[in-house]
Amino acid sequence: MTPDRPGQRNSLDPHLDRYAARAAGMTASEVRALFAVANRPEVVSLAGGMPNLAALPLDSLADEVASLVRQDGLVALQYGSAHGVPELREQICEVMALEGVSGHADDLVVTVGSQMGLDIVTRIFCDPGDVVLAEGPSYVGALGTFGSYQAEVVHVAMDEAGLSPAALREALDRTEALGRRVKFLYTIPNFHNPAGVTLDVARRAEILDICAGHEVLVVEDNPYGLLGFDGQTYPALRSLDPDNVVYLGSFSKTFAAGLRVGWVLAPHAVREKLMLAAESATLCPPTLNQMIVSRYLATHDWQGQIKTFQLAYRERRDALLAGLAQYLPPGCTWTVPDGGFFVWMTVPPEVDTKAMLPRAVTARVAYVSGTGFYADGSGRRQMRLSFCYPTPERITEGVRRLATVLTDEIELAATFGPVNTRTGSGPQVPSPDTA
Amino acid sequence: MTPDRPGQRNSLDPHLDRYAARAAGMTASEVRALFAVANRPEVVSLAGGMPNLAALPLDSLADEVASLVRQDGLVALQYGSAHGVPELREQICEVMALEGVSGHADDLVVTVGSQMGLDIVTRIFCDPGDVVLAEGPSYVGALGTFGSYQAEVVHVAMDEAGLSPAALREALDRTEALGRRVKFLYTIPNFHNPAGVTLDVARRAEILDICAGHEVLVVEDNPYGLLGFDGQTYPALRSLDPDNVVYLGSFSKTFAAGLRVGWVLAPHAVREKLMLAAESATLCPPTLNQMIVSRYLATHDWQGQIKTFQLAYRERRDALLAGLAQYLPPGCTWTVPDGGFFVWMTVPPEVDTKAMLPRAVTARVAYVSGTGFYADGSGRRQMRLSFCYPTPERITEGVRRLATVLTDEIELAATFGPVNTRTGSGPQVPSPDTA
Repeated sequence: MTPDRPGQRNSLDPHLDRYAARAAGMTASEVRALFAVANRPEVVSLAGGMPNLAALPLDSLADEVASLVRQDGLVALQYGSAHGVPELREQICEVMALEGVSGHADDLVVTVGSQMGLDIVTRIFCDPGDVVLAEGPSYVGALGTFGSYQAEVVHVAMDEAGLSPAALREALDRTEALGRRVKFLYTIPNFHNPAGVTLDVARRAEILDICAGHEVLVVEDNPYGLLGFDGQTYPALRSLDPDNVVYLGSFSKTFAAGLRVGWVLAPHAVREKLMLAAESATLCPPTLNQMIVSRYLATHDWQGQIKTFQLAYRERRDALLAGLAQYLPPGCTWTVPDGGFFVWMTVPPEVDTKAMLPRAVTARVAYVSGTGFYADGSGRRQMRLSFCYPTPERITEGVRRLATVLTDEIELAATFGPVNTRTGSGPQVPSPDTA
Repeated sequence: MTPDRPGQRNSLDPHLDRYAARAAGMTASEVRALFAVANRPEVVSLAGGMPNLAALPLDSLADEVASLVRQDGLVALQYGSAHGVPELREQICEVMALEGVSGHADDLVVTVGSQMGLDIVTRIFCDPGDVVLAEGPSYVGALGTFGSYQAEVVHVAMDEAGLSPAALREALDRTEALGRRVKFLYTIPNFHNPAGVTLDVARRAEILDICAGHEVLVVEDNPYGLLGFDGQTYPALRSLDPDNVVYLGSFSKTFAAGLRVGWVLAPHAVREKLMLAAESATLCPPTLNQMIVSRYLATHDWQGQIKTFQLAYRERRDALLAGLAQYLPPGCTWTVPDGGFFVWMTVPPEVDTKAMLPRAVTARVAYVSGTGFYADGSGRRQMRLSFCYPTPERITEGVRRLATVLTDEIELAATFGPVNTRTGSGPQVPSPDTA
């Protein structure tokens, strides 16, 4: 800002030349405008990643929260430490033990959702220009965070057994040959968002070995791990290599997203840096929310509640898969998740899922185009279908509508050639996931 | 991380060479270890910035929160937008109107405490090496955030009427002459933390003019503005220059810190960037907490509650000032706040407040050394005394103990010469303020 540029203050954004370089990487989601429409009640949204809370015991929760405020209000409404409420950290260790993790409560930092975990991990590790490896596709909110720290995402291919070890080796070799510094591998091993696949157990040790061999840290994001449809769990990467894995967890999908309680379990030395970053980000996570989760874990049958969630989501997954098999035109393929929220679909080459989205919304069904899940412009033949939120009947109706739109699109392409309206692409802010 | 450094994995922190450059700016507060001791019940802490919640109506709050979870739990426990709950944003505009601000709810982003507001404002504006002007002394949590984005803080002197316009002009000229880019002035105009002074109303327009003339943005941090001891308020800087001021507000001091509900009101174009930064930081602030604040504002006499807080803090300020006048050895001076939480004290030149702190804690009284509030190593003759949390009787006892320690220190220096044990200094993480 120098005084010899007086005209700047008359431009559309008078602050335009004041922003940090990283602000250029923060762009609004291409589908945000559509989401206002997609959230209308007449639209079946297969787009959002909102958990289904209908099964929560609101009455007993209300009683617990009231007694908490009445009895411990002076603590619950007061500042806490950036580390998090000690009792909750102990309980979180018990939750993680279900997936084989034996972490210490002291090495755990409570965060404002695991999005904040992602943010502070990226903050302490990534300089501008550093490379982060991530599955292709990957979680849109992670891509947004990496972009906001000016890290470059290099995607690693997946198949139905998750991240490909061969592709990982190749990506590491290629990136290192270019003299680029890889800071970490970001991976969602279980019930992947958006791909709907789970990393094969046999591959886990191999992936960890490859990363250790290249001295690359692993950031394991595991919000869905307890939502296996048969109650099955998989060994967390963190349980296999505690010294080289930073683990991100969350109560958003197993309890209540609106409380924004997540956590990071990190090697001890890293935990100290994370706590400093957390302090400078929010001082401390909300005390009340941590105490609510702690009471809930102590007084409710939280594992029984997770089983209820598993059944609800399985029923919805089944409705989606049945609808896809019944209604979709030939040439579409999709993943078959055994847990979590998402199916990843690939459509015939003449269809552009991003270009088609406005027509889908007009036909009263919404999805997220695959382009949102890549930092490199890929994903035009893919879409993410979320089955977490609508009822099974609505899901079936949504797929029926989607099938009609797809069929029309394919017929149109057969008559006039493929529609190709390329616009901007790349990492987006995470809003689609919560809409 | 290159494979030719195998020895690194055996060092104390095997991740040491993986951290981002900004992580070097994140160092633990020098007094954090002392705080564990300072929080023992036998120690009178004049150190922490914890608000006094004793006057909160916990029973009726408990009822409200219970009815909220019971009736609106599916919304309160669900994801929301990064923008914040619309009704709360409207109510916040009414709160700000008490200090003359006429902002629009659309230009406001709800944050996880105003610390997060500071974080995202710095994130979108500051590149490494950019200069931020801040009062000397300044809020420790702000210095930590600026440091974590590798911005350089240049302090601007204050007097009993707050930030000095002459010093501001001089700092701007000097910094610009060095070819450095000043991104914004960070200021706490009302009941300053830690200085305990208020920016003279006549100076406000002048400060804004100077900044506008240099095309430097103003970031106004106003957590204490409604805590004037005579119910007085001062016109917010934002009310005088809406286009060039980003305003940070908080319910931490006027309602409940543990909910972590703050906000940023920004010029429209900036608000859009802030929302993107907030999404990548936490997805959205906790919905439940926002709805609790919204209900509280709608159903409780929140202005009456603020009056209760004003009286409680005035009584404590009076106890502190009376104790200082009665017990302190000659050569000490202090500010006389007309609101807020803090008194800023200057001690005789032979005393080093940082070196003296362990002896004070041994004598069962704690304060924060002035060094925590400067990025440049200043502050060894100053200390911050917080009167917000202990009872008036405890405050008096604390001052008595502090006076003894100070007197001993001065006598010791007269006998053996001044103690001088300079150790590290500079910006610290904000933990002291919440302890």
